[in-house]
Amino acid sequence: MILIDGRPAAAVAADDRGLHYGDGLFETLAVRDGRPRFWDRHWRRLGAGCARLGLERPDEAAVRAEVGRLAAGHARRVVKLLLTRGSGPRGYRPPPAARPRRILLAADWPEHPPAHAREGVELRLCRTRLGRNPALAGLKHCNRLEQVLARREWNGAAAEGLMLDTGDRVIAGTMSNVFLVAGGALRTPRLDQCGVAGVVRELILERAAELGLEAREERLGLGDAQAADGLFLCNAVIGVWPVRRFGGREYPVPDAAVRLRALLGLEEA
Amino acid sequence: MILIDGRPAAAVAADDRGLHYGDGLFETLAVRDGRPRFWDRHWRRLGAGCARLGLERPDEAAVRAEVGRLAAGHARRVVKLLLTRGSGPRGYRPPPAARPRRILLAADWPEHPPAHAREGVELRLCRTRLGRNPALAGLKHCNRLEQVLARREWNGAAAEGLMLDTGDRVIAGTMSNVFLVAGGALRTPRLDQCGVAGVVRELILERAAELGLEAREERLGLGDAQAADGLFLCNAVIGVWPVRRFGGREYPVPDAAVRLRALLGLEEA
Repeated sequence: MILIDGRPAAAVAADDRGLHYGDGLFETLAVRDGRPRFWDRHWRRLGAGCARLGLERPDEAAVRAEVGRLAAGHARRVVKLLLTRGSGPRGYRPPPAARPRRILLAADWPEHPPAHAREGVELRLCRTRLGRNPALAGLKHCNRLEQVLARREWNGAAAEGLMLDTGDRVIAGTMSNVFLVAGGALRTPRLDQCGVAGVVRELILERAAELGLEAREERLGLGDAQAADGLFLCNAVIGVWPVRRFGGREYPVPDAAVRLRALLGLEEA
Repeated sequence: MILIDGRPAAAVAADDRGLHYGDGLFETLAVRDGRPRFWDRHWRRLGAGCARLGLERPDEAAVRAEVGRLAAGHARRVVKLLLTRGSGPRGYRPPPAARPRRILLAADWPEHPPAHAREGVELRLCRTRLGRNPALAGLKHCNRLEQVLARREWNGAAAEGLMLDTGDRVIAGTMSNVFLVAGGALRTPRLDQCGVAGVVRELILERAAELGLEAREERLGLGDAQAADGLFLCNAVIGVWPVRRFGGREYPVPDAAVRLRALLGLEEA
């Protein structure tokens, strides 16, 4: 089921700027019993993206109601909220009177093997790099060809691919953020040049101290990942996945990953 | 009028990957008396883009017929050909059975003042930079937020904005390519890191020698543009526009621009 500006619909106007230029933002919501997990953080990130792109954020109560409508009758549901700049004539210039269009799409909860969360996943290294641009870094915008090309690189067993930027820095998985565990501290790449600042990543940075763990953003290279005591991936739908194998090495399941899952209420993800 | 996969339609399936990820390519065709100018070059560039993204290029005869249908009854028409990866489920991974979707949209010929081509335009410098990524450089893909943000910077008299990349190199206008005239030679930025390799730019590089002009691709900085004898912009719809003013300086209309317009049959653009 799909709701466009609150009404059931299956199609979007062909002059939508999201379609033509990727001129929009999105949030992927993990919804349990009608309630989107981490809603406040998703909503805040959407607001930050709207400010950067010059989009008006829709009414929160309306969107919450639409999410509830899409999730009704499902214990677990993924709802994608896509906000585009709306319709416009040809040309990059945003029309002064552009009205943002919100598109909410429901999808089944993905049936990942439970072992992904308990025992960890295989991670591979992508050849496709992320370009650097501070103007877009951190946003969950709709210019995602780099991720598409990266995810197109493999069909095999690996659950996720790790992406470097064009300057050889480790940035993120194609659909997840990454943390390194090293010397009892959590390290995650700075996202001031590229990458998506995920809501679970932000939560971990804020709350790791409750577990006695230091968590910090750093510039990290492939050598740091290869030398780490452990690695894990996170996003709002998968929760936290330890990395079991990467670059020919086996990694143990980090104790920190297990404890973070419990702290953040992600056990059932 | 809009044709989607050959049929009149006003809307695109809401699960189109162009809408979600900018997962597609486009060509903007200047059509005169039903014939798209520089068709072979547009078609070739679309094919190169399809190869890079892993998309199947549609049937040429079908697209040509659709362009003709959209342009019928108009002496001059702009037809945009948008080719997306088509519909797919949630997630970056292109579905193995994805069927590309072609969307052709007709627009009126833009009524730019004739003085733009004869006397030149004002060019401004954009703050928004272009990120570098060789994997996407040169392609006319649908990840265009950088251009949108750049074009959003001004409302005034300037006809175009010049964009630098994140490494301070001159790359292109928001919707056009740029040439510098210096010492009797034409210089245009290399597009191996970012930018769109325009069809008129390509034509000029190939055919300038017919006018006794050397034309070459180079790494160029703002200082090169400011020190040039002249500047001009080009794309398939505007043809060639001399730059009259940029960065507080006045530039003469380059003789090369006038002669290229004649050589390429762009006088009427």
